[in-house]
Amino acid sequence: MLPYIAEFLGTMILIILGDGVVANVNLNKSGMKGGGTVQITFAWGLAVMLPAFIFGAASGASFNPALTLALAVDGSFDWAMVPGYIIAQFAGAFVGAVIVYLLFKGQFDATEDQATKLGVFCTAPSIPNMGQNIFSEAVGTFILVFAIKGMANVPGLTDGLGKFLVFGIIVSIGMSLGGLTGYAINPARDIGPRLAHAVLPIKGKGTSNWGYAVVPLVGPVIGAIVAVLLYGAIPW
Amino acid sequence: MLPYIAEFLGTMILIILGDGVVANVNLNKSGMKGGGTVQITFAWGLAVMLPAFIFGAASGASFNPALTLALAVDGSFDWAMVPGYIIAQFAGAFVGAVIVYLLFKGQFDATEDQATKLGVFCTAPSIPNMGQNIFSEAVGTFILVFAIKGMANVPGLTDGLGKFLVFGIIVSIGMSLGGLTGYAINPARDIGPRLAHAVLPIKGKGTSNWGYAVVPLVGPVIGAIVAVLLYGAIPW
Amino acid sequence: MLPYIAEFLGTMILIILGDGVVANVNLNKSGMKGGGTVQITFAWGLAVMLPAFIFGAASGASFNPALTLALAVDGSFDWAMVPGYIIAQFAGAFVGAVIVYLLFKGQFDATEDQATKLGVFCTAPSIPNMGQNIFSEAVGTFILVFAIKGMANVPGLTDGLGKFLVFGIIVSIGMSLGGLTGYAINPARDIGPRLAHAVLPIKGKGTSNWGYAVVPLVGPVIGAIVAVLLYGAIPW
Amino acid sequence: MLPYIAEFLGTMILIILGDGVVANVNLNKSGMKGGGTVQITFAWGLAVMLPAFIFGAASGASFNPALTLALAVDGSFDWAMVPGYIIAQFAGAFVGAVIVYLLFKGQFDATEDQATKLGVFCTAPSIPNMGQNIFSEAVGTFILVFAIKGMANVPGLTDGLGKFLVFGIIVSIGMSLGGLTGYAINPARDIGPRLAHAVLPIKGKGTSNWGYAVVPLVGPVIGAIVAVLLYGAIPW
Repeated sequence: MLPYIAEFLGTMILIILGDGVVANVNLNKSGMKGGGTVQITFAWGLAVMLPAFIFGAASGASFNPALTLALAVDGSFDWAMVPGYIIAQFAGAFVGAVIVYLLFKGQFDATEDQATKLGVFCTAPSIPNMGQNIFSEAVGTFILVFAIKGMANVPGLTDGLGKFLVFGIIVSIGMSLGGLTGYAINPARDIGPRLAHAVLPIKGKGTSNWGYAVVPLVGPVIGAIVAVLLYGAIPW
Repeated sequence: MLPYIAEFLGTMILIILGDGVVANVNLNKSGMKGGGTVQITFAWGLAVMLPAFIFGAASGASFNPALTLALAVDGSFDWAMVPGYIIAQFAGAFVGAVIVYLLFKGQFDATEDQATKLGVFCTAPSIPNMGQNIFSEAVGTFILVFAIKGMANVPGLTDGLGKFLVFGIIVSIGMSLGGLTGYAINPARDIGPRLAHAVLPIKGKGTSNWGYAVVPLVGPVIGAIVAVLLYGAIPW
Repeated sequence: MLPYIAEFLGTMILIILGDGVVANVNLNKSGMKGGGTVQITFAWGLAVMLPAFIFGAASGASFNPALTLALAVDGSFDWAMVPGYIIAQFAGAFVGAVIVYLLFKGQFDATEDQATKLGVFCTAPSIPNMGQNIFSEAVGTFILVFAIKGMANVPGLTDGLGKFLVFGIIVSIGMSLGGLTGYAINPARDIGPRLAHAVLPIKGKGTSNWGYAVVPLVGPVIGAIVAVLLYGAIPW
Repeated sequence: MLPYIAEFLGTMILIILGDGVVANVNLNKSGMKGGGTVQITFAWGLAVMLPAFIFGAASGASFNPALTLALAVDGSFDWAMVPGYIIAQFAGAFVGAVIVYLLFKGQFDATEDQATKLGVFCTAPSIPNMGQNIFSEAVGTFILVFAIKGMANVPGLTDGLGKFLVFGIIVSIGMSLGGLTGYAINPARDIGPRLAHAVLPIKGKGTSNWGYAVVPLVGPVIGAIVAVLLYGAIPW
């Protein structure tokens, strides 16, 4: 049971801190409104790193259905545990987003713009284009998963430093490619909070834009699987 | 005696550097006015990390009555030392704030806005709402204490890297949730300097807003205790 | 074969992430337009660090013809492998730049300014002056290579932490000297993407400014060789 | 001879990177003009960290007459080597500043403001007040030296991570207290480059403001000595 609890709690904390920084920086009446993209990308890196440390030994700290799936394809994760992990990840992301809403309720009420409010929960492309957006998410997730595979094989890398590097990977992808589609690179990170947006009684909210949800679902899965396959094909 | 000296000096340095960055970035005639929230959150992380390294072996580097209390509840800290620790923490925070005032006296004199001057010393909510603000402080402190418990149990994590992660935890909470209540997440960090504001002869100062002090007192204590109880309930 | 594959893939990822951040921050319609120089320099540091971890054991993670050459001069790298490494580095940089173009095609189409578009691919001086610019690139690369030599000889430095420091070296050079010539400090990083700019069908593109390409070719080679010679001359 | 060479080269690199970032961010026609205080403080941290790694084993990486003196007072550094170290540090800082001038000559020529040009070389107070400014420099240097002493005694801290923390210490002091006097916290860092400013043929330069030089000389020495004395008085 522990691994599933760990994936649930880890993804929940990831979203509290990750969706949290977007709310913190973009919603009206937040004391840190205007913090900018350095704050957003840095904080997302920490949002993944913290639960990676806390829950790494318990579950492997995936928090990401695309990564979990790719590791199963890769043979380094048990297929039997995949469904439970993915359910825990989506559920944790949903609950995390609800907590962000409860924390920032006053700030949500003070914010008119519907896209800004939706943007706290889930991702959106800077230029909508289904194929192009899926490609962007696939490349970002490719780098994420390829780097995670690589870190796991660095000789003499302590486990502690390895998890710290997760921070570097997430910040790197965000800073370098985040302006394309908001770097979901994780279906649970997008769709769990999107569902929270759909069901929560957010004042003056607009559409949850479900049509776009296919991008952060399909793109990361493709990118993650290509990454493990390419990584496995290299004659290390 | 050493642990109490360490808690006193550590909390003092924490506040010199932590309240220092707020003065440095917000007061008129400071050479770094306008540094913004990345500088503030980054510097607060370092403000906690530096004394954590220096005094970690001597006292455990708590510097935080809510954390000290929660660790006692948890059974990992001796109740008999709790009162002395808490007194040392409040005293250190008070003295640290006095030193910040002495350092930035010219800049305080050059600053009209009373809320800006009070904001160097202690926290304030972006939207005042007692219940909501206590909830925010509780969630922030929950993450702080839950992460500290988690770090302590990472297999193969060197002590040095573990203390470095304290930096990541503090920056993460600040960047992601700091716009709600200014992330006191520590009663001593708020109330010690608030007392300094009340007693110091600051030119043109306003109220010390003692009515709000209950929030950074009660919220962190609740969050810290919930964190150790939940952490203890997980079947690691 | 592995070392050459590693140099190719590593340089490709380096350019995806490195040219990526410039596109991400400077092109119109990018969601992170305006991120600024902290984001650019931080992300370039990560762009080098990530492949350094992934491919360090496979190839030594040079990704830089000037560094490869200097290490051969130094006697710490096999001359027979130099040509293959350099070809792999230029090829990887070219392919990386093509991928950045494919990722940001919509944003390139939305950007009028020709210098901005060229600036995603390769470097340019803030004040054009061939001799002065070569000197700048030589000094930057001197620090890069001297620091890399130094890191390799720190007693008790774990391999993992050593590679992390690559991040610090790149960020340092960028933040401190980047405003002079855009800190190529690597012929492949500039000329591979410059070639991509020349051959890709970029809408409304201007000149590829080949006349300047001699600077990021000659400057880094001089700086790197001086660095290994001086390092070797010190009586450590 | 090696320790003196190391102190000379280390301080030279420190000033190339440290004065470099101020030039990079503040001079006209620099491609990174406007980078702001996060870039300045971050880059100064790296400017100290890089030579600390490279020259740590050779000389102890002091680069700072106040630190060298305090360590001699402390009994942890040989008095006989103090004069040579201090000469090497001032000479290295002077040469480093000359190199920054040679690198940014075009940008200096394009900058009118005399205080901006002087500010690349050495520090200045935001509010001139001799006693207050000496106090500021003393407090900053106290924290520097107290933290360095503390790091040296952390159980289980690897040498590599310890040197990395130097980065954290410098960034912390800069971000939290830098707006007072520009945090020289090192007589060589200020007076070496100030001498370079005085003798170099900088176009349209103003006074080198020697009257202020007593502050970054006296303040750091007081702060450093108080730090080692207090550190030694604590019953660790």
